[in-house]
Amino acid sequence: MKTMQSIPYDELEIGQSATYSKTLTEEDLVMFAKTSGDVNPVHLDEEFAKGTPFKTRIAHGMWSAGLISAALATVMPGPGTIYLGQNLSFRRPVLLGDTLTIKLTVSGKQDEKKWVTIDTEVFNQDEKLVVKGDATVMAPAAAAEVVAPDLPAVTIG
Amino acid sequence: MKTMQSIPYDELEIGQSATYSKTLTEEDLVMFAKTSGDVNPVHLDEEFAKGTPFKTRIAHGMWSAGLISAALATVMPGPGTIYLGQNLSFRRPVLLGDTLTIKLTVSGKQDEKKWVTIDTEVFNQDEKLVVKGDATVMAPAAAAEVVAPDLPAVTIG
Repeated sequence: MKTMQSIPYDELEIGQSATYSKTLTEEDLVMFAKTSGDVNPVHLDEEFAKGTPFKTRIAHGMWSAGLISAALATVMPGPGTIYLGQNLSFRRPVLLGDTLTIKLTVSGKQDEKKWVTIDTEVFNQDEKLVVKGDATVMAPAAAAEVVAPDLPAVTIG
Repeated sequence: MKTMQSIPYDELEIGQSATYSKTLTEEDLVMFAKTSGDVNPVHLDEEFAKGTPFKTRIAHGMWSAGLISAALATVMPGPGTIYLGQNLSFRRPVLLGDTLTIKLTVSGKQDEKKWVTIDTEVFNQDEKLVVKGDATVMAPAAAAEVVAPDLPAVTIG
């Protein structure tokens, strides 16, 4: 049974950091296309993608942003976090099989509202920055441990 | 056979707008959790969600952002668009069964680089603003018509 721990507002310190990693599979890419409706062939059709500047299929930029959201919600601050805003700058393409690491670093705290600003950097396995930005969240007031629900199986094709 | 038309840089005008709509299903929500790894129970466990300020399961905020990405990639400017950046402000929760409409409005053009800034507003079926932000994209140089690939079937559970 996998559990997730939240870090409450009072325990977050400026400069504190955390990471979250995930590898892009074919299934991830198809599920993102389905859930968003973004069926652009640059993501889905290898023949078509060969004729683009990228020469091969690339991930949806917003897939990387989904990983930032997962890092905030499951690692730091973790469960109970309320997502208020995010800025994103897409810097490099992400390809199938790439392993992305989200690096979160606390950059500011606003005691009155319990808002926290967090630098959000996304690196690939070659340590190249693929997405850069910052998040604003409301951190949980108290520490909590939450059981990660089991997801149903998803079959593609 | 569904096709998508791109609107090239030269044909985009300040104030021009376009929309894209999608209804959040259980399958969409589970696929977003799978593809991102965000397994926070506020999205997946109705019993858990009853104890949160929202009283019921809510969508991942970044799912709405995925719809913005789909609108830019498939409607305006459409295929060939390169996504450079996005700012997001999450204003209201999105619930299962909600139908979101993305409204895109061209707000600026930078001829030298063919960059376009686009206001991105997301409304629910009650015309309440759920997400607000703006996108920066590089629009395609020439008009193109692209066939939307068929996605493989996805079975859940």
